[in-house]
Amino acid sequence: MHFYFAPQILQYDGTQLASLWAYRSFGLLGDSIVAFRGPCCIQFEHMVDLEDVRNQQPIYGNDMLHFIVEHFDHDLEKTILRQRLFITVVKEVLEEKGYKLVRSGDDLYYQERKLSISIATATPVSTIIHTALNISAENTPVPAIGLIELGWPAEEVAKLAEKIGLSYIKEMEGIQRARCKVKGVR
Amino acid sequence: MHFYFAPQILQYDGTQLASLWAYRSFGLLGDSIVAFRGPCCIQFEHMVDLEDVRNQQPIYGNDMLHFIVEHFDHDLEKTILRQRLFITVVKEVLEEKGYKLVRSGDDLYYQERKLSISIATATPVSTIIHTALNISAENTPVPAIGLIELGWPAEEVAKLAEKIGLSYIKEMEGIQRARCKVKGVR
Amino acid sequence: MHFYFAPQILQYDGTQLASLWAYRSFGLLGDSIVAFRGPCCIQFEHMVDLEDVRNQQPIYGNDMLHFIVEHFDHDLEKTILRQRLFITVVKEVLEEKGYKLVRSGDDLYYQERKLSISIATATPVSTIIHTALNISAENTPVPAIGLIELGWPAEEVAKLAEKIGLSYIKEMEGIQRARCKVKGVR
Amino acid sequence: MHFYFAPQILQYDGTQLASLWAYRSFGLLGDSIVAFRGPCCIQFEHMVDLEDVRNQQPIYGNDMLHFIVEHFDHDLEKTILRQRLFITVVKEVLEEKGYKLVRSGDDLYYQERKLSISIATATPVSTIIHTALNISAENTPVPAIGLIELGWPAEEVAKLAEKIGLSYIKEMEGIQRARCKVKGVR
Amino acid sequence: MHFYFAPQILQYDGTQLASLWAYRSFGLLGDSIVAFRGPCCIQFEHMVDLEDVRNQQPIYGNDMLHFIVEHFDHDLEKTILRQRLFITVVKEVLEEKGYKLVRSGDDLYYQERKLSISIATATPVSTIIHTALNISAENTPVPAIGLIELGWPAEEVAKLAEKIGLSYIKEMEGIQRARCKVKGVR
Amino acid sequence: MHFYFAPQILQYDGTQLASLWAYRSFGLLGDSIVAFRGPCCIQFEHMVDLEDVRNQQPIYGNDMLHFIVEHFDHDLEKTILRQRLFITVVKEVLEEKGYKLVRSGDDLYYQERKLSISIATATPVSTIIHTALNISAENTPVPAIGLIELGWPAEEVAKLAEKIGLSYIKEMEGIQRARCKVKGVR
Repeated sequence: MHFYFAPQILQYDGTQLASLWAYRSFGLLGDSIVAFRGPCCIQFEHMVDLEDVRNQQPIYGNDMLHFIVEHFDHDLEKTILRQRLFITVVKEVLEEKGYKLVRSGDDLYYQERKLSISIATATPVSTIIHTALNISAENTPVPAIGLIELGWPAEEVAKLAEKIGLSYIKEMEGIQRARCKVKGVR
Repeated sequence: MHFYFAPQILQYDGTQLASLWAYRSFGLLGDSIVAFRGPCCIQFEHMVDLEDVRNQQPIYGNDMLHFIVEHFDHDLEKTILRQRLFITVVKEVLEEKGYKLVRSGDDLYYQERKLSISIATATPVSTIIHTALNISAENTPVPAIGLIELGWPAEEVAKLAEKIGLSYIKEMEGIQRARCKVKGVR
Repeated sequence: MHFYFAPQILQYDGTQLASLWAYRSFGLLGDSIVAFRGPCCIQFEHMVDLEDVRNQQPIYGNDMLHFIVEHFDHDLEKTILRQRLFITVVKEVLEEKGYKLVRSGDDLYYQERKLSISIATATPVSTIIHTALNISAENTPVPAIGLIELGWPAEEVAKLAEKIGLSYIKEMEGIQRARCKVKGVR
Repeated sequence: MHFYFAPQILQYDGTQLASLWAYRSFGLLGDSIVAFRGPCCIQFEHMVDLEDVRNQQPIYGNDMLHFIVEHFDHDLEKTILRQRLFITVVKEVLEEKGYKLVRSGDDLYYQERKLSISIATATPVSTIIHTALNISAENTPVPAIGLIELGWPAEEVAKLAEKIGLSYIKEMEGIQRARCKVKGVR
Repeated sequence: MHFYFAPQILQYDGTQLASLWAYRSFGLLGDSIVAFRGPCCIQFEHMVDLEDVRNQQPIYGNDMLHFIVEHFDHDLEKTILRQRLFITVVKEVLEEKGYKLVRSGDDLYYQERKLSISIATATPVSTIIHTALNISAENTPVPAIGLIELGWPAEEVAKLAEKIGLSYIKEMEGIQRARCKVKGVR
Repeated sequence: MHFYFAPQILQYDGTQLASLWAYRSFGLLGDSIVAFRGPCCIQFEHMVDLEDVRNQQPIYGNDMLHFIVEHFDHDLEKTILRQRLFITVVKEVLEEKGYKLVRSGDDLYYQERKLSISIATATPVSTIIHTALNISAENTPVPAIGLIELGWPAEEVAKLAEKIGLSYIKEMEGIQRARCKVKGVR
């Protein structure tokens, strides 16, 4: 599984949530986690979370740390399990710095202010996750907090991305090993 | 999905890690999480983790809080993902009380002392998880800590079990909802 | 699994056979069966049954009782099995009133006159069934019969829909229970 | 898919519910439905329906028409759907003769007297169904009816078995065709 | 599984790589292998192999023998395994005539000149393979060889197609038989 | 995926065809291919190919090169496809030396003399293949040929095993890459 931090600023508009985006954009073949920094602005027609569409809930952020995770299998429920573990990994990496966050499903909160957004869905050949953390919480449509206000230096966002990406890959590898060391039972 | 706390003391010897144990023992039909209190002593021939067998690593505990989780589907990797979320849920429930734990894969530690054991495997009709938390850490074969030493009152172990069980069920229900509210993408 | 009878008249034109239609239209999250009354007129470009397209077989009905069933899994063969059970359930509900119908695959006949149409297919996130019963058989392109001529009062169509919907849900729940009460064999 | 009526009398004791029984006994390779006539007496240790074991419900019949259906895939829920369709097929074949039966899940009744027993489970390489119809209802542990009392001549039991077997195969083939003639939808 | 050789010349432009093409074009219902002769010219927007798109690698052939294989299941990895066996079957059929070819993944070479192109992908209801052999190697974008130069008479291309198609079907049937004659192990 | 050549002589008696044999014996965790040299003698109760059991076909060899391949997924048909590719890889490796072999399903022949035996089956947690090549053909129950008579030096059997093992791993990796570089089609 590949990790890549794209150094350029990219606007996330929902079109990145598509099969083989990491391969088409960066030549990464196979399961991957790509991180990048940039604003987030998703038109309703690109929203895949129909709960947000039903609630006419805009999704917007000035400056976020984005992750696109792609797994080449077909079980959406499994990838939602992975998505929740990904959020857990993010929480644990930030906790090492002493931040006390609360996870609720696929969301992270600091004192009831939202730090993250996340969605998982299926493509014709894979399943795919988008998770983003506010770097700044300016102009967000709900009460939110950003990494900077939390105390994480803006210039170390790439380092954070890498820590998270590598921890997630290690988690996935551990799961694969756990799957291969047990015998069945009656 | 059912939660049940069995009030009697039961010794966990590995034979409970079998299909339909919750149905045969307590009449629980379908996905379930059963908790009970008791010692833990697993003979090598009942160990399903062949890493422990290879390492001749005994598994023993005087007094533990056990959970047996059964899901009626067939994907072992998926149930290992669930197992890691289960451990996350345990950690989060204990963190609410202010204990700072570290998760490493499917294990929980307090200052490098082990709080838990866990395994997941497949039966012919389901997948199944056993996780147990030390109540006391007496006589454990590795440096360990128990809930009592951590400050959780022994008489509130059933309450803890219920909190964990219900949180896990809520997590699974949230995942099911998340799976049913997204459209696919290209 | 949800049942909902939409009280308004809706024309079925094939576009309702799409993922999350029940959620987008009525807020039903998860497996569901939605019934409604209305005409049926499907353009060839919206037909998913390519046998009908090949035969240039128009699909038309003045007044029908429609069911849209959505299951959030991915096995089309399994949903075709469910579709045949759904037709069986319709037949059994009508038989209670003394009508003697004949099932042939996913079709119901009364004395060689067609009572129903049905199709099942896959979406990117689910599988989906459309079944409709003629209320009136006027203007149908093949020899047909409607519920009214069969003796079912037009004003009790909603009641029939509910009986069918709840029977199908009971059937699915029974199957789930049956799946969870057997041990495997060699 | 093969149909075979074994001409000899065989006692069903539960050991026939095993992978490749049709191949080992009759050389039938692949999906199959085998019928035979004989008594039925299942020891508790050979019962796979743990509901019967829990209820200490004996399973016994003097003279039954048995069917063993084997499908070489792994989805137990799918085979339970098939099992319910199999029961539907049995009902429809008997209805052609004018008998009015009631299906409840995987059971057939005539005026609240039980005509059939049925179970479906998984083997390591396939899924498998046993269904049996009382020929005589003598000595059955619950109020029951047999084919003879229902009016089906005892000497035509093989003919009935064949009609049922071939109808089920036709049903499965129709399902396979239905699966291959639709395009997907959004 | 059906084999059909379409007698007319057809240009392959990538649009044939779509679900139910064999059914829509020739009425073949179910798994099938269709062969035809014609030029090959695929616009980048119809290429599914994104490696070729990334490399701006044109795909072109004056005169090729095409095969479109469709399997009505959903596992793309499984169909890539079948694709490699298909190439193996092509190689073995040509070897019977004494040609010594080298297979590398899903490509066939004669002395480092390319004989074939191949791709496999998923549709919403099936998986699908396109493989084509150069009949002539004129104007190909890479060093290539055609069947004619290899010594296979142009007028016997239909015979070759049939030999390959029937060998592949026999291979698939043998695999199905092998799957149904083994018991599981511990 | 691991390759390992076990240097000691081991008798293959069928008990090696079991889940996690490579892990239990050599500590190889995950998908693996293990090769070793030794006689082959399988009692009927350890035969998983019931065709051989039905035909009372003994399986015996004085000196063979064995391969045990384990894949940690659950689709037996997929592993039979892999088994046929494995045989293809063996054939291609031997062909490089100029031997002209014929493959028929999962068997290799040299001038109608059998070079190999092979079987694939399922375990509770994986699928598994045993393939063995005669080194000597002495005392084989059918007309056979061995590697030595074919001209492959006995002292280079380990080298052959490695060439085959690494080619198979490369094949599997290529398949994984091919699976991850295509977009879906309609």
